[in-house]
This record gives sequence, C-alpha cells and structure tokens, in this order.
Amino acid sequence: MLININLNGYKFLTWGKLVQIGVIGLGRMGAAIVERLCARDSRDYRVLVYDLDPIAVKTVEKFGAISTVSIDQLVTQVDIIWLMVPAGNLIDQILAQILPVLKSKTGAIIIDGGNSNFHDSIKRAKVCAEQQVSFLDCGTSGGLHGRDLGFCLMVGGDQVAYAKIEKYLAAIAIPKGYALVGPSGAGHYVKMVHNGIEYALLQAYAEGFDLLRNNNNYLELDLAQVAGLWQHGSIIRSWLLELTQQILKKDQELKNISGQIGGGSTGSWTVTEAQEQNISVPLIKLSLELRAQSQQDLGQHSFTNKLVSLLRHQFGGHSYEKL
Amino acid sequence: MLININLNGYKFLTWGKLVQIGVIGLGRMGAAIVERLCARDSRDYRVLVYDLDPIAVKTVEKFGAISTVSIDQLVTQVDIIWLMVPAGNLIDQILAQILPVLKSKTGAIIIDGGNSNFHDSIKRAKVCAEQQVSFLDCGTSGGLHGRDLGFCLMVGGDQVAYAKIEKYLAAIAIPKGYALVGPSGAGHYVKMVHNGIEYALLQAYAEGFDLLRNNNNYLELDLAQVAGLWQHGSIIRSWLLELTQQILKKDQELKNISGQIGGGSTGSWTVTEAQEQNISVPLIKLSLELRAQSQQDLGQHSFTNKLVSLLRHQFGGHSYEKL
Repeated sequence: MLININLNGYKFLTWGKLVQIGVIGLGRMGAAIVERLCARDSRDYRVLVYDLDPIAVKTVEKFGAISTVSIDQLVTQVDIIWLMVPAGNLIDQILAQILPVLKSKTGAIIIDGGNSNFHDSIKRAKVCAEQQVSFLDCGTSGGLHGRDLGFCLMVGGDQVAYAKIEKYLAAIAIPKGYALVGPSGAGHYVKMVHNGIEYALLQAYAEGFDLLRNNNNYLELDLAQVAGLWQHGSIIRSWLLELTQQILKKDQELKNISGQIGGGSTGSWTVTEAQEQNISVPLIKLSLELRAQSQQDLGQHSFTNKLVSLLRHQFGGHSYEKL
Repeated sequence: MLININLNGYKFLTWGKLVQIGVIGLGRMGAAIVERLCARDSRDYRVLVYDLDPIAVKTVEKFGAISTVSIDQLVTQVDIIWLMVPAGNLIDQILAQILPVLKSKTGAIIIDGGNSNFHDSIKRAKVCAEQQVSFLDCGTSGGLHGRDLGFCLMVGGDQVAYAKIEKYLAAIAIPKGYALVGPSGAGHYVKMVHNGIEYALLQAYAEGFDLLRNNNNYLELDLAQVAGLWQHGSIIRSWLLELTQQILKKDQELKNISGQIGGGSTGSWTVTEAQEQNISVPLIKLSLELRAQSQQDLGQHSFTNKLVSLLRHQFGGHSYEKL
C-alpha cells in the first residue's frame, strides 16, 4: 500500500503497511475518541469509522477519520476494532459479524470501550480467544469534558494485546489516565464500581446543596459562591463539585428542570454484584433506589433530584427533562 | 510603642501601634493557623497565643508567635481574638472572660474558627454586639494538609468586621479559599453542611473500594492503582480519592485497623437541621447511622468502616483504633 508519512514535518510517500484502527459507534463518546485518535501528532495509523448515522460520520471525517459504508467493509481493512456502542446484545451481534474476518488476521484486537457488564466481557473474551482474537474490556470515564481533557481508561485483559494498543490509549486518555487493571472483565468491573460510587457522590453533594438552598432566605447563601469556595482548600473539593458550581452559576433555582433522574444500569449492576458477593454498599444502593423513586411524580420537584439530573447532563451529556 | 517595620526589604524602627492578633487554642488546627499567620511575608501584625498546654505553646513560639500566660493577659494586648477551641460551653466561658475587656476597645473582633453549631454562633454574635464587639463565625476546612496548602475559610457575620480581618484570612487560606458567605451563623452553617456531605462522600468511596477489594482474588485488582488511575480524568476524581490512594499505597488489607469510626457531631447537626427544615438528606443521614453502628462490635471488621476511619485520620489527624 502507498502511504503518506509525516516525519518531523517532512511529508513523503512510501510503500508499507500502515496500521489501521476501526471505530464502530460514533455517539458522544465514540466521536470524542475518534477526534482524540485523529488529533495525535505524527500518528503512524489511520482511523476508519462506521456508524449508522451519516451525520455522525460526516462530523468525524472533519477530524481526518475515514468513513466506511458497512461493518463488513470496515473489518476487512483493520486489525484493531474499538467498539463504542451501547451495552447489550448489539456487542454480541457485532462480534458474530467481525470475528470470522478477524480470526484470519494474526494479532487482531477488539476493544469494548462501552459500559458493558463485566460478566459479559469475560464471556466475550473467551469467545474471541477461541478465534485467536484478543478482546480487551475498557471502562471509559470523563464524559463530555474527556474530549478536551482526555479520558480515564480502565482496561482489562491480556498484557500483550494491551501493550499493542497502548499508543491509542495514550492518545485518548489524559496523561497517566490509562492502565491495565487486571484480566478480562477487570476494566468493566472497575468502571462499574466507579459508576456506583458516582451515584452516591452525586446524591451526597445534591443533598448538601438542597440544605444550603433551603436556608437561603434566612442566611442569604449564594450556592455558586459556596461551591466555588469549597473548591479551594476544602476536604470535599472534587471534579463533581466544580461541575456543580458551573450549574449553580447559571441557575440556583432549577425551577424548570425535572427531577426525574435517568440512567441506572451500572448502578444496578454494582448493587447486584455487591449482594452476590455479600458486601454491604448501603449508600450506593440507596442512591439507586432514590433514582427509581425520582421517576415517580413526587421526584419531579425535588431540588436534590434536579441537581443530580443536571450534573449527569453536565458531565455526560445525558438528557434531562424540563418541567 | 516602638515597632520594627520591614518595608520593601528596608528594616527600621518607628513609633506606632502594631496590630496584635491573639489566638486561643493551639491544637492541630490552631497551631497550623498560627504557623500560617506567622509565615506571612512582611506582616504588619504580631501573633499572640494562649493554650493550657506548654508544649503546644513552645511549638508555635518557634514560628514567631508570642506566648501569654493567661487569657486575661492575652486579651488586654489584642484587638482581634481568634478562637480555635473545641465547640461547646468552653466558647461561652471564654466570651464571658474576654468581653468585659474587649468592649472598651473600639472595633474589637472575635472570630470562632472551630466547629461550633451555627445556632450558637448566631446567639454569640448578638451577645457580642451588645458589647460593641464584632463576632465572626468561621468554618475551617482543609485538615492536616491545610497547614501547607492553606485552608478553606467560610465566614459569617458583619461585612465591616470581615474587611478588617481579610489579611489574616488571606494568610491562613489557600488562594481564593476564603469568603464571607452570609450573616452571622452562615459560616458555621456552610461548614456543617460541608461536613454532612463529607460523611456521605467518605462512605461512598469506602463502599466502592470494599467491592473492588473483595473481588481482588478473582480480578487481581490493585486498589492503590485504581485509586490513582481514577484521579486522572475520571468523573469521581477528588481530594478524598487522592487521600484514599495514599492510604492504599501503604496498606490494602487494613487488617490491624479498627472500623469504629469516631466523630459525628457536625453530621448529627446536619441531619437534625434537615429534619427541622423538612429537607430530605437520606445519604447523609444513613452515613451518620452507619458511624453509630460502626461503634458496635460488628463494625470493627468492616473494610468500609476501616477505610472511612483511616481517611478521617489522613485528612484531619483524627485518632483511629487498632485491632
């Protein structure tokens, strides 16, 4: 293949095999990952993409990604496939479609960067291994801001395969924001627990601000000021608190926001897993229950729920309802 | 009074009134505040101190603080008194002792930098105002690390008095880490809610790490690695997570640590206050209950409790029991 090389600013053509990586799924997170893969300086790889949505494809073409018309077309051209599709059966369907092609390619690697259940990831790694294809499960955190700042990537699987994709991880992650945390399943397990903790953190901050807000008339508190102040030197300073400040700077009443909080799958897995392992996670469990309750009419007008809902939007772009 | 002036590097003696600030209470937090007050470049004030413990006094004398033999001796020499003593009746006793002297000094100010109940602070501000003395309530967060990094100071009270002590706040706080958040009581109210949130955050992280730890044998997770990884780009990055990493780097088993968690007063006030205001704070309330349960025999061997207990030690120097 005739390929373009850009070496220290000198561009020239040469014959050789340019590594090609394929990304399937160009939602918010998938598009951000493609953008970061394409933005890497003097990269020695090309990024091929596939998504059902032509607008999503057009957007990432601007970053330098090469579009394909089908998964079948994509898979023939690449050795590494990065899946950024919703968790569930879709992953198994895609695996069934790409494994017959990938098994003929020595050292082919599939990475699942979505929020899959870690039990599924362990099974899928076995299915792939039977076809001599490596499967890495990769928990991805960082949300909307990850596009600019870089993501946090928690990878589970084989060390040799991990070493082969390390340069892509470095392109996608914030500095020091990627690691092999264990064998197959470990990446998604760690991400699942991360999300369980996240549920409780969101609820904890929101409860506190509800209590600050309620005494607003009496003590004249400015919630955005307090959130900002706490960012400087307090014990509870954090990224979620920074996002809280950003929300409250614009609106401290949240009158037109519905308190119905979406999501829940990874939190639900965390609680189920804790029950099966006989580990007590009372706060994570209660946070999950409160989300379910928020879906009922009563939850719509709770300031705590509104703030949790907006925080999910702020970090992850998750949709929220308006009242 | 003949005073030393250091102006742009030129030292000279002049006649004038050097402002003197008195700090009562030289525990961990009080000593750190004195150290920061004394360390300020080209300061135009002197720091007088009083504590029952002669060793605590000796320690801060090394920073340049001037010791006094009694509260009575201290109060005659200063216009500003910073209280860093345990919350409760002791504050009222000290006020009764110092107000008769301070009332004759125009513009005298008392700052309560401890963890007092905000209802008490509102009452005390009124008592002081009757004697023409300003009383500011100041919530102080930052714990042991505040000594080096600077604290977060949440101040409630009168704007004029606040303006007068701003240079001291700047000396004690991290940059941008101090503010007047509202009228009397607001500082301690905001600190109370801060602590309530803190209870739930500690519990949330600890539950997650318990779940990571339990699957250690199977997925071979390194808890310190995960804590460190999450600090880089994940949604749940925070100061408490950084402290968690520091603990887990040294010990991931916590075998010899008791899970009996101390503290509880500010969390208890938060829950009581929420009940009185009819605000739902289920996670904060549950965290408080779990602390009470941890004091029972059953709680001693819970990894979650052990980690919460060690985190309190890590940020605040609070004691923990060994098994």
